[in-house]
Amino acid sequence: MIPEFQLIDYLKKRIPRSFQGEIGIGDDADITSLGATSIVVTTDAMVDGIDFSFDQIRAQDLGHKLLAINLSDLAAMGAIPKAYVLTLAMPKNLKVAWVRKFYEGLMKPTRHYRLKCLGGDLSAARELSVSLTLFGVPGKHPLVQRKHAKPGDLIAVTGKLGGSILGHHLKFKPRVEESLFLSGKFPIHSMIDISDGFYQDLEHLLKSSKVSADVWLNQLPISSAAVRLSRKTKQAPLTHALTDGEDFELLLTVSKKYQKKIETAWKKRFPNVSLSWVGEIKPHWGPIRWYNQDRKVSLKLKKKGYSHFS
Amino acid sequence: MIPEFQLIDYLKKRIPRSFQGEIGIGDDADITSLGATSIVVTTDAMVDGIDFSFDQIRAQDLGHKLLAINLSDLAAMGAIPKAYVLTLAMPKNLKVAWVRKFYEGLMKPTRHYRLKCLGGDLSAARELSVSLTLFGVPGKHPLVQRKHAKPGDLIAVTGKLGGSILGHHLKFKPRVEESLFLSGKFPIHSMIDISDGFYQDLEHLLKSSKVSADVWLNQLPISSAAVRLSRKTKQAPLTHALTDGEDFELLLTVSKKYQKKIETAWKKRFPNVSLSWVGEIKPHWGPIRWYNQDRKVSLKLKKKGYSHFS
Repeated sequence: MIPEFQLIDYLKKRIPRSFQGEIGIGDDADITSLGATSIVVTTDAMVDGIDFSFDQIRAQDLGHKLLAINLSDLAAMGAIPKAYVLTLAMPKNLKVAWVRKFYEGLMKPTRHYRLKCLGGDLSAARELSVSLTLFGVPGKHPLVQRKHAKPGDLIAVTGKLGGSILGHHLKFKPRVEESLFLSGKFPIHSMIDISDGFYQDLEHLLKSSKVSADVWLNQLPISSAAVRLSRKTKQAPLTHALTDGEDFELLLTVSKKYQKKIETAWKKRFPNVSLSWVGEIKPHWGPIRWYNQDRKVSLKLKKKGYSHFS
Repeated sequence: MIPEFQLIDYLKKRIPRSFQGEIGIGDDADITSLGATSIVVTTDAMVDGIDFSFDQIRAQDLGHKLLAINLSDLAAMGAIPKAYVLTLAMPKNLKVAWVRKFYEGLMKPTRHYRLKCLGGDLSAARELSVSLTLFGVPGKHPLVQRKHAKPGDLIAVTGKLGGSILGHHLKFKPRVEESLFLSGKFPIHSMIDISDGFYQDLEHLLKSSKVSADVWLNQLPISSAAVRLSRKTKQAPLTHALTDGEDFELLLTVSKKYQKKIETAWKKRFPNVSLSWVGEIKPHWGPIRWYNQDRKVSLKLKKKGYSHFS
């Protein structure tokens, strides 16, 4: 099998552009017009033994997470979530009580975002897998894609990074309101949600936009979980913040001139969520340049982030 | 695990009606409005070892079938298909050549119906499973649901039934044009596609509509494949026509007064596809009454049809 990201590129070439959506395969979601309305669609699957371990996750947490990761993808586009369908492939010995709790977890964000559950598909399987297709509509402003980062843009990150595995990956609240606020009030050039890790997702954004970046490591918002995890792993908290997956924070770029306005408006609207300016977009696609207090440094990392196929 | 259909009923009760779509869980698809447009959504998954056997199906046939079964679901609503997303959960040893052929199979109906492929999700898994969510819009007329069959309606079936396993289940052309023609020109009361077998799917329709039916067995269109299969199985061809799954034909009910008009229009538009009148809707939910040449008969069947969980 070839790696996930190569396979996406490969499939993209096999589907003629005219049969893809307006954005095309490879972003967090895609859009197409259906008569008078455009719909934005994203889908994510979770497989037992790969994306979760049945014995180590509560059914309600899995239900919540499945919907939340899809909500995070739509948030990354600045889209308003509306409805979803669900697919459950279930081993025969799965208990009804498990399914009930799974639905309880699913219903909380369903209620919070006033989503419609439009049914789905049930199938038997040897291994448990759950998948969800979420769709929504664009907000008042155009969708925010990965590919429009501009040289001179500042790079911003919501919340704190790293150590998600200690609990955040199950409990996180997708940045739906934050995304709609930012994309509705300011001309955000590009955005992605951090699911594969800051380093790797920033690279996805840079590659799509054909640009590079300076990143200011001392500005990176390191979570307390990253610090706690570092005591066990003996890796630096910064390494966790750079490479741990499943932060589900927003990573975005916007023209420098909006920095002050965004800061002021953000603090008023989201006093309990940090927004950090962590770097600057530079012309031409190439490797990220890392800085610590204005000093260029080189990173020694074992891996850039999480891949489903590694 | 509880049986599939009971589980659907169970889940339906756990999701408040206000969080379901306009039709509600349990039909072939559901609908919700997104601003100015309504969208119709359906989803179907296929799991190796359950819905297909990896060693016995060509990749291109699986790609075709996955899309075709979803098209058949939208056809059952009288909806126009527009776009889809795809999820592949793949074992690590899956060959790229297999994925390429799978996409070839998928692209044929994609081109034919001018659909958009809006990306999807790739995931590693121990067992291969593929799933697809298909979106469409209502045609000029209201969507055709299962639940509006009326006493006095005639029951009609497109094409021929039974023996699908001999090849039809891989090669079938979903009845998209036929559905749009019928639902666009005539006030079809209710419709379903035959995936679980004529007997079982008719029961689904009757139960949703809270009615019963007389079925005229001598009018049932038996496929030549059902006859060929019966030589191997030693079961009657009629048994195959009644209970074999995956015919993917349309089963619909319409007021008697349109019978002649529909027949004439159908023969002109679809000279190579049969349309058979196989029974009549009767008041009150209850068991189907079977007739052979006006004589009431009792059926002795081992099973009513196909269930993913049996």
